[in-house]
Formats: sequence, C-alpha cells, structure tokens
Amino acid sequence: MISSTGNAKIRELVRLRKSAKERMKRGLFLVEGPKMFREIPRGLCTEVYVSEAFLQTGEGKAAGEVLDGTSCQIEVVSDPVFRYLSDTQSPQGILALVRQLRYELKDVLTARCSGAPLVVVLENLQDPGNLGTILRTAEAAGASGILLSQGCADLYNPKVTRSTMGSIFRVPFVYTQDLKGAIVQMKECGVRILAAHLKGSVDLYEESLTGPTVILIGNESRGLTDETAALANQAIRIPMSGRVESLNAAVATAVCLFEAKRQRRIRTEK
Amino acid sequence: MISSTGNAKIRELVRLRKSAKERMKRGLFLVEGPKMFREIPRGLCTEVYVSEAFLQTGEGKAAGEVLDGTSCQIEVVSDPVFRYLSDTQSPQGILALVRQLRYELKDVLTARCSGAPLVVVLENLQDPGNLGTILRTAEAAGASGILLSQGCADLYNPKVTRSTMGSIFRVPFVYTQDLKGAIVQMKECGVRILAAHLKGSVDLYEESLTGPTVILIGNESRGLTDETAALANQAIRIPMSGRVESLNAAVATAVCLFEAKRQRRIRTEK
Repeated sequence: MISSTGNAKIRELVRLRKSAKERMKRGLFLVEGPKMFREIPRGLCTEVYVSEAFLQTGEGKAAGEVLDGTSCQIEVVSDPVFRYLSDTQSPQGILALVRQLRYELKDVLTARCSGAPLVVVLENLQDPGNLGTILRTAEAAGASGILLSQGCADLYNPKVTRSTMGSIFRVPFVYTQDLKGAIVQMKECGVRILAAHLKGSVDLYEESLTGPTVILIGNESRGLTDETAALANQAIRIPMSGRVESLNAAVATAVCLFEAKRQRRIRTEK
Repeated sequence: MISSTGNAKIRELVRLRKSAKERMKRGLFLVEGPKMFREIPRGLCTEVYVSEAFLQTGEGKAAGEVLDGTSCQIEVVSDPVFRYLSDTQSPQGILALVRQLRYELKDVLTARCSGAPLVVVLENLQDPGNLGTILRTAEAAGASGILLSQGCADLYNPKVTRSTMGSIFRVPFVYTQDLKGAIVQMKECGVRILAAHLKGSVDLYEESLTGPTVILIGNESRGLTDETAALANQAIRIPMSGRVESLNAAVATAVCLFEAKRQRRIRTEK
C-alpha cells in the first residue's frame, strides 16, 4: 500500500493531473470515479489506484473483476494519499491511468450514425466546462467527431474528462496545429463548411444540414477568427430575440447540432 | 473614501454577496463590472461603489453621467477594499447595489415576442452556471419567462447574475413555494405543459410548440420529480444518439426552446 505523498508514483500522477504538457508527452491521462472507470475501453487502462476505504465497498470488489484478464493491476493507496491525489473535493476512491486515444482526421469524418458526416470544429475554446459539455452533446446529436485548434483547452484535463460523462471514450477528436489546412482538406472532400457567426447572412433553420457538414464554433468571447470564418462555404446565424449579444458556446453548438439531428432523424432511430 | 474593510457599509455589502437569505430579506442584490452596470434599468440602482483606480478611467467618468438625474450616489473605495468586496478574481472596479426585480406569474406568462407564451419551469436546478446560461438562452429564444422552484439556486447569486450577461434584467422570473399550484394554474389557463423527460413517449420534434407552452426541466442529476412530471400534458423526449444518458440541463433547455423558436419564427424577425 502506498501511504506517502512523497511516493514517486504519486508524484508522477499529480504531475499528470496538473500538466497538459506532461499528459501529452506521456500520452496518458487520469480518469476518476467508479462511473467513469466503467466507461474506459478495455486495453486502454494501464494502472488503477484505489483508496483503502473504496476497497471495502462492493464497487471496489467489482473493479477487480472488471480488470480480470487484462495486464492492469490495482494498487491500494491510503485514504489521505488518495485525497491528495484526487482532483475532486469528494474523492470517490478510484483513479485510473489511461492511454490517450489517438485519432486521425478521417476518424472524425466517419459518420457514426446513419447519414452523412457531421463534424464540429472548435477554435480556441477556453472553458473546460463548455468543452466537456460539447463533447457530450456531440455524441447525443450523432456528430461524427470533433476537430480542435491547438488553442483549445485540454480535453484530458480531469475536469473536462469528467464533464464529458464518458463521451470522451466514444466521440473521435483531434487537436490540430494546422486548423486551416484541416478545414481546407475537408472542404476539398466535398464537406460543406458552415461558420456559426453572429453576422451570418443565412438563418440556421434555412440551411440544409443533411449532407456532409462541418460546423465552425469560435472562442467564447471573441468568436471565430476572420481567417477561419473566411474558409466557410456559408456563415449561418442562430436567430435570436431580445437584446442577447451571443449565446454560450456550448448552447450555440447544441442548437446547431440538434437542428442537424432534427433534419437527419429517421423514424427507426426513436 | 472608504479605506477600511471594517466599514459598516462594506460589511453589509459582503453579507449581501454571500447570503441568499440576506439578499431576499433586504430585496437587494449586487451587480459587478462596467458591462453589467450599463444594463441596470434606471431607478433600480440604489448605491454605486467604484475603486480609486476605476475612477481614473474613461468608464469611471461615464458611470457618473449614467447616474445623472437619479438619486443614486457614487462612493469611492480604496483599491484593496474593492478587491475585498469583489466576487471576482480580477475586479473591474465598479459594483452596484440594486433592487431585486419583482414579478408575478402573469408577467412570466406574458409573451415578449410575437406568438404565444413560452415558459420554462425549473425544478431544483442547482448549478449556478446552468441557471445563468438558461436565462440568457431563454431571452435569445424569445421565451416569455421563467418559473423556478424554491429548491433552485439563487439567480441573485453574483456568479449567476454575471453569467446571465444582462438577461436577468430582461427576462421575467418568479420563485415559487408552490410549484405544483403554479403549474396547475397555467394548465387551467389553457397552456400546454410539456415535461422534458428521458422516458418521454413523444419526440420533441413531433410536438407542436407554437401554442401557449410550458417546458418543465428537472434537476441536473435526478431530473424532474415524479410528482411534477405527472402534471404535464405530455412527456417529450429529446432524441439522442450514442450512449449518452442525458444532456446537460442548460443544453436540454436550449434544444427545446430553440425548437420552439424554429417552429414559431416568422420571416420579419430575421
């Protein structure tokens, strides 16, 4: 049992919790809590840490069974050390070290549902809560995947991972250093590029979203850069009443994606 | 100039910042930052506090002009005391003490846009960020107003107020101790009550939302109580792909409200 916060393994885990750079370098991230633990695809989990208290619970015993037949071992940690390790105020006693998922642009473009690809492109999205909510919403709306500019927050940040409610394991996503190149590449494949824009000239509800579609979503306060918005085939506007200047980024994404879902929905899916 | 955190006025403001009970008792709340300050309806503002540094800025001078002709005076506070007073990590130097808005059920039911009333009922919504986002989204979607159960977070919490981006001054809302009574009252007026529910038997997109409509939204993790869901004329389901269990509460509200907006939109509104 590990009972010191000075333990080399514990220090490594804390570094991974805190640093996006460290996570990227190592190709690993942390997944906390029994619910998220059960969502980890078999084979991605490399190490599991449980608190003494958790081990006594029914879930603690079940966790062991989940790992049967994998090379992943469970390591017990004293309760105070687990609290030190945890990212949450009420630690739930289980934390896994998981290999990062590696996708390519073509994975993001592969339609998961019936119908054409539906991709969300996020440019410089900063709010971890928004990012997690967008991933969860994208899965629910049947989006094929997410493309993120390097300036977006890190999806492997423990707060974001948690707020995806498991969607992080199911929705393909790619960070790109060349957002423009990736958008142009999709455009050349015949995908229609739509920019969600306050000054869009076409109403969202007047645009057909049933073909291969990319929706560009910009930063929370500054929106899309002019350079990125200029790559779109069409700038679309979510019609708004009142004196609201803009919608929350996750809300704007949800409204666009679910309008696509509405237009694409087939009765068998219900 | 106030230069001590022990000043009676400063202590009163901090109490109002921290305590929902105190805000309710006094019928006051705090509004921080120059952007939100400009949104305050004339006549509601009772006192304004600015930091020394803010007073030197162009905005500081403009704030004085905004208040010309009102009985509201500006009080200068030393920069350290302003930081103590502020709810934010980067205080913007202006804070107003504002009278709470008082609405009745009929205000919430009065359509602000062309078309029939569209009301959001929130039951036990706990997340301040969600609450603020919902208010902002409701205004943008043209909702008539919001009815909140007593178990919801406080809209006058500074974090919520800020995240409404000014919608708090424009969308009527009422907290009720008798949620059931209020829903029944609306139902008796001929308003159609729809419960957003994971087990809803009708697809959102198959429901007409053009008549007088109430949408019931439940708590983030537990959803609607059975008692409240039972009051609905119809339980509606947002169709979801993938293995997502539920949507974020603000996202679910947005998807319902913007579907209503889509159905109700008239070309002149564009």
